[in-house]
Amino acid sequence: MDIRIRLGRNVRALREARGWSQEDYADRAGIHRTYVSDIERGRRNPTVTVVEKLAAPLGVTAGALLN
Amino acid sequence: MDIRIRLGRNVRALREARGWSQEDYADRAGIHRTYVSDIERGRRNPTVTVVEKLAAPLGVTAGALLN
Repeated sequence: MDIRIRLGRNVRALREARGWSQEDYADRAGIHRTYVSDIERGRRNPTVTVVEKLAAPLGVTAGALLN
Repeated sequence: MDIRIRLGRNVRALREARGWSQEDYADRAGIHRTYVSDIERGRRNPTVTVVEKLAAPLGVTAGALLN
């Protein structure tokens, strides 16, 4: 499976497990809500520093979001 | 530690463990040698699709390179 799709599915699953809306999560990650939406759909190819920003509020490692 | 530095150290350690020069590895990964050099020095902020290209010839997951 494409790594962008895997990333998106992991982000969505972890976000939803925490009961956060995309907007809640975007605020915590310091990323725009539309960017979160694109990430979850596998429509972005973020850099590693963005992956780290995505991972931080979820309490997981950056690497965990890619596998 | 900055995620770009971690990535670079992981790439270098795994490449050297395989006895490959940067040029050997660059050819296997389909990436330019100077880009490999920059990655190993933490001077690049690659996208997740590039991380996957970096991981493939090393036989590790993309996530393993970030942690």
